[in-house]
Amino acid sequence: MRLRYKPNAPQKIAEFPQYIPEQPDNWVGKWQERFDNDRPIHIEVGTGKGRFITEMAKLHPEINYIGIEIQMSVIVVALDRLVEEKLPNLQLLHVNGGSVTQYFAEGEVDQVYLNFSDPWPKKRHEKRRLMYKSFLESYEKILVPEGEIHFKTDNQGLFEYSLVSFSKYGMVLEQVWLNLHESDFEGNVMTEYEEKFSSRGSRIYRVVAKFPKKIN
Amino acid sequence: MRLRYKPNAPQKIAEFPQYIPEQPDNWVGKWQERFDNDRPIHIEVGTGKGRFITEMAKLHPEINYIGIEIQMSVIVVALDRLVEEKLPNLQLLHVNGGSVTQYFAEGEVDQVYLNFSDPWPKKRHEKRRLMYKSFLESYEKILVPEGEIHFKTDNQGLFEYSLVSFSKYGMVLEQVWLNLHESDFEGNVMTEYEEKFSSRGSRIYRVVAKFPKKIN
Repeated sequence: MRLRYKPNAPQKIAEFPQYIPEQPDNWVGKWQERFDNDRPIHIEVGTGKGRFITEMAKLHPEINYIGIEIQMSVIVVALDRLVEEKLPNLQLLHVNGGSVTQYFAEGEVDQVYLNFSDPWPKKRHEKRRLMYKSFLESYEKILVPEGEIHFKTDNQGLFEYSLVSFSKYGMVLEQVWLNLHESDFEGNVMTEYEEKFSSRGSRIYRVVAKFPKKIN
Repeated sequence: MRLRYKPNAPQKIAEFPQYIPEQPDNWVGKWQERFDNDRPIHIEVGTGKGRFITEMAKLHPEINYIGIEIQMSVIVVALDRLVEEKLPNLQLLHVNGGSVTQYFAEGEVDQVYLNFSDPWPKKRHEKRRLMYKSFLESYEKILVPEGEIHFKTDNQGLFEYSLVSFSKYGMVLEQVWLNLHESDFEGNVMTEYEEKFSSRGSRIYRVVAKFPKKIN
């Protein structure tokens, strides 16, 4: 996803600290305070322009959502949506998805969404894929015991890789969809990318994978 | 796979006890004696007309193969091939694939192949699928520790089911192919069914799944 450089983006982000915290590491372990309730927290790592997380927040007011995105020119589009919709159960976080352990306490998050993540197809870039074991370690740390990752993509190679990476890490595949849009899955919320590429005939893959019980 | 009833099938099977043992439960724990060597044993559960296992046996003389098939009208076709090829490293076993623990000792088998198994698509027939947990228990019992299942199919629903069933059982997915014939997998030996349906455009799925270490 590429957008033109937006010179007023930093200013816009600074304008809405109620939606994008200026000092996100101040909120470690205290995210529910920002939502002013104790509802479960679901995060999306790589939230892009925010269509998915905004729709989810509208559909599920009983869940607190946090969309994480490092690209400034993209997260401001998500911010625009949020400002317009004024959703009390959605926050944005302008940080690197690989550093989630810096911004959440252990067990603070109930569920992780990964949608159409960068496939990094070259073998030498494997460590950049958001399903590489070092990322899984981060998600496991901030998730509740037996927390789940919900992942979808149109990229066959990334999906094959992810099934194996989740499994080798010790996660259990709870459900797998090899053609989501032709399945009986209900309540699918499409990302911008998903709508565009599925309309061109791309098959969409989805998996729910669960971390094992934590043994202390 | 349907074949006409072959009235001379039982007679033919009785003619070649060197290829299909008449009293298969006499060979529990002693299969290597039949091969007259101590090479690893790979079995195919549901071997059909035997094209896959015969080709594998020709390509890999260092492995002992056993093709298991309950349908008499089908296994006689596999027997015809074997009689013609006179392969010293292939045996056939005319029993039900669900009862493998009656014919092999614990840890006697090194690898299990499942190829284009019956999908039994109705939920109420789940227990008949060869990837249902009761079958996995049987395979685990007769396999060496960390033994593998190599499974391929063109049936999307069965493949989705199998990935989840393997994973929930505690197996690790070692590798997954979501379009085998378009992948860089080398040395694929096609079954009769695979050749027919892939030439009609069916996508072929494949997975290698490994049982966990046995803890005694």
